[in-house]
Amino acid sequence: MEYSKLSKNKLESIHNDLLARYERYKSMGLSLDMSRGKPGDEQLSLSKGLITCLSEDEYISGNIDCRNYGGIDGIPAMKKIFADLLNISPEQVVVGGNSSLAMMFDSIAVNMTHGPGESEPWFRQGKGEVKFLCPVPGYDRHFSICEYFGIQMIPVPMNSDGPDMDLIERLARLDSMIKGIWCVPLYSNPGGAIYSDETIRRFAALSPAAVDFRIYWDDAYHLHHLYANPAKTLNIIDECEKAGNPNMPYVFASFSKISFSGAAVACVASSVSNVEYIKKRLSYQTIGPDKINQLRHVKFFRDANGVIAQMKEHAKILAPKFELIHKILERELLPLGIAKWSRPLGGYFISFDAPPHTAERIVALCGAVGLTLTPAGAAYPYRKDPLDSNIRIAPSYPTLLELEEALDVFCVCVKIAAIEILFASLV
Amino acid sequence: MEYSKLSKNKLESIHNDLLARYERYKSMGLSLDMSRGKPGDEQLSLSKGLITCLSEDEYISGNIDCRNYGGIDGIPAMKKIFADLLNISPEQVVVGGNSSLAMMFDSIAVNMTHGPGESEPWFRQGKGEVKFLCPVPGYDRHFSICEYFGIQMIPVPMNSDGPDMDLIERLARLDSMIKGIWCVPLYSNPGGAIYSDETIRRFAALSPAAVDFRIYWDDAYHLHHLYANPAKTLNIIDECEKAGNPNMPYVFASFSKISFSGAAVACVASSVSNVEYIKKRLSYQTIGPDKINQLRHVKFFRDANGVIAQMKEHAKILAPKFELIHKILERELLPLGIAKWSRPLGGYFISFDAPPHTAERIVALCGAVGLTLTPAGAAYPYRKDPLDSNIRIAPSYPTLLELEEALDVFCVCVKIAAIEILFASLV
Repeated sequence: MEYSKLSKNKLESIHNDLLARYERYKSMGLSLDMSRGKPGDEQLSLSKGLITCLSEDEYISGNIDCRNYGGIDGIPAMKKIFADLLNISPEQVVVGGNSSLAMMFDSIAVNMTHGPGESEPWFRQGKGEVKFLCPVPGYDRHFSICEYFGIQMIPVPMNSDGPDMDLIERLARLDSMIKGIWCVPLYSNPGGAIYSDETIRRFAALSPAAVDFRIYWDDAYHLHHLYANPAKTLNIIDECEKAGNPNMPYVFASFSKISFSGAAVACVASSVSNVEYIKKRLSYQTIGPDKINQLRHVKFFRDANGVIAQMKEHAKILAPKFELIHKILERELLPLGIAKWSRPLGGYFISFDAPPHTAERIVALCGAVGLTLTPAGAAYPYRKDPLDSNIRIAPSYPTLLELEEALDVFCVCVKIAAIEILFASLV
Repeated sequence: MEYSKLSKNKLESIHNDLLARYERYKSMGLSLDMSRGKPGDEQLSLSKGLITCLSEDEYISGNIDCRNYGGIDGIPAMKKIFADLLNISPEQVVVGGNSSLAMMFDSIAVNMTHGPGESEPWFRQGKGEVKFLCPVPGYDRHFSICEYFGIQMIPVPMNSDGPDMDLIERLARLDSMIKGIWCVPLYSNPGGAIYSDETIRRFAALSPAAVDFRIYWDDAYHLHHLYANPAKTLNIIDECEKAGNPNMPYVFASFSKISFSGAAVACVASSVSNVEYIKKRLSYQTIGPDKINQLRHVKFFRDANGVIAQMKEHAKILAPKFELIHKILERELLPLGIAKWSRPLGGYFISFDAPPHTAERIVALCGAVGLTLTPAGAAYPYRKDPLDSNIRIAPSYPTLLELEEALDVFCVCVKIAAIEILFASLV
């Protein structure tokens, strides 16, 4: 029965029971982590062959000695795998090192100091007040890059088929200091939204006031489906090209959640003209990324189909974790009418909405008994969730057994905080 | 006999013979490369065990799963190797990816946009005209980073014991927009200079007008000795600390010329306070460098002594190449009085000074018959060698046989250009 329909006495009695259970957790010395989208041990073990797949004599790819200098934009064989996975051509790909986040940071950094190609450096334009559109809830590390560069973030509400395009079109047309937008088009972080074809076509057809507007298209979960017959999103590079905005999108992807998060290969993809511009910068910046690790990935996965096959194994490990969480949340919280959450078809997160003004309290309650959650508000620019309601749940790292324990704690804490806020509203 | 003492007729006859030889090179379809300091195949093979040294179960270092996220500044075991090699402590080390150049670029980039810690961003100070001191001849890729960021380069003459310290002290004290200097303290690129203890102590004791002045200490050849009983340079981090300038130096090093240039590990080292500042930036910038490749290096080299042992093997391969070049240059050019060159005790280059106004001509002559050299002027800011005299010779990549052939071509081209310029002066 819903908490809001219970009498104060009844709620007090439930609250006391919950506090007693909570006290028991305290004494258990738990150490559980649902804070980050880290792959679990079983997932990492899928790629153990990557460590040993090359022999001492395997270092040549095409006519390239991967042991030596050269090839700042990656080896062709690795480009081809990324290109096939993203449905583009290899000359639209720049392969980097371990971290696609580092490639996003670099891109923002260079656009601040040099501009993206067709304009003055962003920081020299206007009064230097660069702005970005930020669909919320979103990925905390996108927002922290903006914060680092003093880029003002404008939140845009997120729906299940992508962000509010009416608002985006209006804002982008209005202000030439709005230079870009962060997007996770498939299984958005944390809500699991899937951008619809219409959303993507409207992105491609944007007419921003800024000639140097850029879409940061973080395709982090392009292959990270949980179930069979997965959703497919339109190719933003093709759509932008068709719409006459070929240089507008930068697409980012990586093997961080395919092979090893600590030893993967990342890429940025875009128009050939943007790629040439990026390669020019790289010729100043680096002697190049690790080519042997690229070769290792090429040998281990063979081709795009090898990657897709491996992703099915990941799904087999991840889907039961998501299912377990849904089952527990449904059993424990659904009847009480105090929360809702996303049921994503892929990606790494569940977005959980607790009663307003309780998210921080819930995270603190969990933390105090050894369950680490992503800080409340993390999915919002400047870490400010206006409702203090959203919590990001990351199911991937714990085992099923640990998850069950963690969800037990979590649900008790949500209930405690929900009753507290009900009491407060009764006063 | 010296060319300058020969009669015009005699010179003409020599010139004709040389041109005839040059024509023969043309028909030979040569393809030789002495342009970059790339390790040769034999050197790379020293590290072939690096490819296979880890088994499928070796991914833990201390309590870190190197396959997973985390550890933006490197694994402790890799830090310890760098620290032992550089005679500092591990908490003074940040381990990066494959390229120390990328770490230098990043450092300049962040100091431009955010400042190095104790000041405003460099680009917001003064009229935004940031300046760097550049010992010449120097490393082209240092200079191109400055060029990329619009940093004005002020050349400072280089001596065999380091750059002109009187000038550096005076300039640094004079102008608060002089924000840094590039140094390759041991076996400088390309001259092979070894900074003396006095030079290094004067660096440490600098009193620059800029409170945020930084020494970019590219210790690229710290271990890259050609002969036994090698030179040692003072530890700039210690000396700066003693002199009350603890945050002034950034030291860069890498395994690019120890293991694989295409799959190495790089680092930046500095004061603990600078390291904390760098780590803070990294927390925005990246999910971290490749930790498995660090573990691979730790396993393969074991410790600093393992690295030093491997460097002796490199020297055995490289020293004969340098010796061969000296032998040929001495035989072919010394008697003619038309050139001088460095005899470095380590590093990767020979700095060659042809007669003024001939370097570009020599490089073009060589290029036209298939011998690629570093572009003339590359060792100077904006690629402008005021004398058009300096050529950088990189002996490492070709085999001994190829080197002999290359030097043959090179000496003929130097002679042709030298006689041409003598003729020009006779007119």
